[in-house]
Amino acid sequence: MDINHMNFQDYLNALSGLNLSNMYLKDFFLTWEKTDDEIKGIWTVADALRYLRSHNISTKVFDSGLGISLFRDNSTRTRFSFASACNLLGLEVQDLDEKKSQIAHGETVRETANMISFMADVIGIRDDMYIGKGNKYMHDVTDAVQQGYDDGILEQRPTLVNLQCDIDHPTQIMADTLHCIHELGGIENMKGKKIAMTWAYSPSYGKPLSVPQGCIGLMTRLGANVVLAHPEGYDIMPEVEDIARKQAAASGGSFTKTNSMEEAFKDADIVYPKSWAPFAAMEERTELYGNGDQEGIDRLEKELLAHNAGFKNWTCSEELMKTTKEGKAIYLHCLPADISGVSCEEGEVDASVFDRYRDSLYKQASYKPYVIAAMILLEKFRDAPAVLKALEEKGTPRIFR
Amino acid sequence: MDINHMNFQDYLNALSGLNLSNMYLKDFFLTWEKTDDEIKGIWTVADALRYLRSHNISTKVFDSGLGISLFRDNSTRTRFSFASACNLLGLEVQDLDEKKSQIAHGETVRETANMISFMADVIGIRDDMYIGKGNKYMHDVTDAVQQGYDDGILEQRPTLVNLQCDIDHPTQIMADTLHCIHELGGIENMKGKKIAMTWAYSPSYGKPLSVPQGCIGLMTRLGANVVLAHPEGYDIMPEVEDIARKQAAASGGSFTKTNSMEEAFKDADIVYPKSWAPFAAMEERTELYGNGDQEGIDRLEKELLAHNAGFKNWTCSEELMKTTKEGKAIYLHCLPADISGVSCEEGEVDASVFDRYRDSLYKQASYKPYVIAAMILLEKFRDAPAVLKALEEKGTPRIFR
Amino acid sequence: MDINHMNFQDYLNALSGLNLSNMYLKDFFLTWEKTDDEIKGIWTVADALRYLRSHNISTKVFDSGLGISLFRDNSTRTRFSFASACNLLGLEVQDLDEKKSQIAHGETVRETANMISFMADVIGIRDDMYIGKGNKYMHDVTDAVQQGYDDGILEQRPTLVNLQCDIDHPTQIMADTLHCIHELGGIENMKGKKIAMTWAYSPSYGKPLSVPQGCIGLMTRLGANVVLAHPEGYDIMPEVEDIARKQAAASGGSFTKTNSMEEAFKDADIVYPKSWAPFAAMEERTELYGNGDQEGIDRLEKELLAHNAGFKNWTCSEELMKTTKEGKAIYLHCLPADISGVSCEEGEVDASVFDRYRDSLYKQASYKPYVIAAMILLEKFRDAPAVLKALEEKGTPRIFR
Repeated sequence: MDINHMNFQDYLNALSGLNLSNMYLKDFFLTWEKTDDEIKGIWTVADALRYLRSHNISTKVFDSGLGISLFRDNSTRTRFSFASACNLLGLEVQDLDEKKSQIAHGETVRETANMISFMADVIGIRDDMYIGKGNKYMHDVTDAVQQGYDDGILEQRPTLVNLQCDIDHPTQIMADTLHCIHELGGIENMKGKKIAMTWAYSPSYGKPLSVPQGCIGLMTRLGANVVLAHPEGYDIMPEVEDIARKQAAASGGSFTKTNSMEEAFKDADIVYPKSWAPFAAMEERTELYGNGDQEGIDRLEKELLAHNAGFKNWTCSEELMKTTKEGKAIYLHCLPADISGVSCEEGEVDASVFDRYRDSLYKQASYKPYVIAAMILLEKFRDAPAVLKALEEKGTPRIFR
Repeated sequence: MDINHMNFQDYLNALSGLNLSNMYLKDFFLTWEKTDDEIKGIWTVADALRYLRSHNISTKVFDSGLGISLFRDNSTRTRFSFASACNLLGLEVQDLDEKKSQIAHGETVRETANMISFMADVIGIRDDMYIGKGNKYMHDVTDAVQQGYDDGILEQRPTLVNLQCDIDHPTQIMADTLHCIHELGGIENMKGKKIAMTWAYSPSYGKPLSVPQGCIGLMTRLGANVVLAHPEGYDIMPEVEDIARKQAAASGGSFTKTNSMEEAFKDADIVYPKSWAPFAAMEERTELYGNGDQEGIDRLEKELLAHNAGFKNWTCSEELMKTTKEGKAIYLHCLPADISGVSCEEGEVDASVFDRYRDSLYKQASYKPYVIAAMILLEKFRDAPAVLKALEEKGTPRIFR
Repeated sequence: MDINHMNFQDYLNALSGLNLSNMYLKDFFLTWEKTDDEIKGIWTVADALRYLRSHNISTKVFDSGLGISLFRDNSTRTRFSFASACNLLGLEVQDLDEKKSQIAHGETVRETANMISFMADVIGIRDDMYIGKGNKYMHDVTDAVQQGYDDGILEQRPTLVNLQCDIDHPTQIMADTLHCIHELGGIENMKGKKIAMTWAYSPSYGKPLSVPQGCIGLMTRLGANVVLAHPEGYDIMPEVEDIARKQAAASGGSFTKTNSMEEAFKDADIVYPKSWAPFAAMEERTELYGNGDQEGIDRLEKELLAHNAGFKNWTCSEELMKTTKEGKAIYLHCLPADISGVSCEEGEVDASVFDRYRDSLYKQASYKPYVIAAMILLEKFRDAPAVLKALEEKGTPRIFR
């Protein structure tokens, strides 16, 4: 069945075979902590929600309730995606702006988490700046609200959506992959495809590792041949590579590494060229930060920028694109991209390549609100497919008619 | 028919004769880009929405959806008006705070506009600081989302409400004029009235030209005799004067200019005394800003303030008010006003004049949320009058009873 | 009847005997300005709202409408409580961020209050920083909107919830007391209980007086024996002590003062150890602030911190807790607490005491959203009990099922 021409019953049918019961009142941290059924379930629910909205059917399942957001880093895309997802389901976003908040010095995460959660159904957190911190913080928050719920303090258990941590960027990479699935006509068509997750040069510093890690951590599950390419020294977390290796073996795909962008692009079906900082440097920065060593951080930044500059040829050029499968690989980026001659002198991608793929890139981004909404729906409802069915039958219009 | 005593059917009747079909999925930039029917349509829908709300009838036409706001300048009145309008119709405001956003250096407007619009029904923008910039930026945004919609990226076409640009301040001046229409008992009573849009002294610097331009760009359409008064050198955009001239000729009114506040006030039915910066100076400032010449900007500010100080006698005094029609002209201001002896030593208006007109001024401001809501309703619904009728028949209470 | 095992009809019965009619379209400034019936009414409505929400019944009484918040001091707990309460009732929070607002120098409170209120149903304000300012400001705001309503400018009268002023912190202390009532099994069980409102050492400076004042201003009404304890010089507002004295006499309880924490804790049923600044110092600070004397403010801060340090033994230790009734007094705190060895070296409470009461403290905090919602419901509806009954009968689910 072509995934791009499903009717509503097709989504329900697709969901009926999946075991999704274990998602209820759980959180979403990392894609590889979820079963294949659960990952498929999120994609299918995302598509079903999109179907309903595009047919002007309301998907408001909350009559009231808050979706708490906490962004420890600037964000436009993810902020608006989370706000859109919450609004789509009927939750009002309440942002925890740590600058305007009275969070006492030494106040425990446990306390803050409970204090903001009395009427919270969902918590979305972005915390990607320091290795070993972001994901841990999210666990601290969910442990706290779970305990608050168990102890009778919270009337409902707010569930978490990881909006980017130091390890994974699940809402991003789930959206990216759903885009590929639609481009290729179905999840089964990901099998055997060559996917090049490659480093690319950017004049900026210290971009998170969560996208390349998220990519190899998810796409290796689908039977694809995933290649991770980067200059020597730009390694990512070894633990995630291990996961990718194991998953590839299980799925009948492969996971390989190379220090050649050319090799990665050769005959690739999908390319994801993007800058990131070396894992070792990120660890060093985390330690410097822990020691309050701003001078050290500044020095590190200078070193990294200088080192980066040695790899300006790692760019997604027209020439490289021509070497992909029929010269027509799907080009992915989480945006914003560093476009040569547009946002910087030399960057991750040629302007003409970016321009040609612009619509595709924006379409890729458009899946994120639905992926987030699907995660929320599956975390908050024991039987999400039944909820979808009931919404469709009820048919309340989103826009008055 | 007295506009202040219409029943709901009267509004529907008034709308039935108007051609409003071309507003659907379009934007609102400048009042003079709209037909007379469309301008009247907005006022009538605004009044009808107010009627419904004051009769405790819900006007929530969106079950979910976002209203994006982008304020590139501080704002209280317009911010709350936009929030009120969105809420009245069922949209949740999501503010694009450029300081908290990850908008990359060199990121195109096209990209940002699409990224925030996946679930946006409306975008409201205030961008009034630099000549030639604000209105252009709004067009860039709407071009981008139109293309996104055409290319299948956006599922709906978010429409724009201009919340103030360098050329016009349509939500303000539409509210101002609707207030006058109510004060005078009907739109036909604007005919032949003398309206004095005059400069007034303020100790502050660089107030936008959008209000005087908006005033002469709208009120000349109603058969009024509009006088623009300012000290020599305080000219506004010549293009807008041309429009005013043409419109006045077509409507049977007039558009004249003078360098005498006294002449403008003499026998006026409506006065709008307000500070603004000379167009030429605003152009110079825009150029200095473009060159990053902060020193030049500071120097210009000093010069302008010194120059301003030569015109302290341009103030809306009790003496001047006495010279208006029967001494009882409608006094307009977009607020906040610079009130002599209250917010500054010498300013735009005598404290006693301001005090006497306070209720009228606040009433004037109260139309803005309804004008914005009317723009949205007409932009988002193919047949807004039918929607109003259905809302009234449905009669869902706004407040539970 | 055990307050912890009431069914919905019990709440309605409890409300039926109370005279609540005078709350309609009024504001909430100070608890002692309200009748006993009104105070009981708020607690009962709060419990009834909690009952409905915990039974998944929507309490959305507003189909649209804004709840305006204005925080002149950082806040997490109260900010989220107000947001939760508004959302629970169907109001959208619109924050008046004075930094992003165009509030002109010298603009009157009257003007700002009206400008933000065109579609506001509720206004929540925190303004606790300066003696003689916060409560007065709130009155200025409500006077302004009352006049706006009377003059036909505002279509509805937004009512105020005091989210903390210089005199009282009613939403806090109403929540604190409701927690005690539940812990003790009913309001009648507050009679004769010994309540120790005591100062405690904190290394920080200038905490507001509103909590101790709020405590003695409310708990003395319930027939309790309220003891106010603090080191010499750490007096609170004498006017509030007068009120406490009169209320204690009327209720059959007592109000006493001591300079001994030990004496206050001895056999106490409830203890509320918490830091605050001396009233005289707060008055001095207000005057320095009025004179723009930052140097003086800094000097005062240093003096106060040095003076504070003489009272480090005023801490809620395990030893002191043992001296309370059966060693098991209810320990209250508005949070965040200064916990010795956790958030500071030496503070208001031992870590082991805080840990033991953690669940109880969080539960205490959980009442605040419901107390605020109850205030709003009683201020905005002529017959709140009838509204509750109708909501229960309608039975719209909060979460889809």
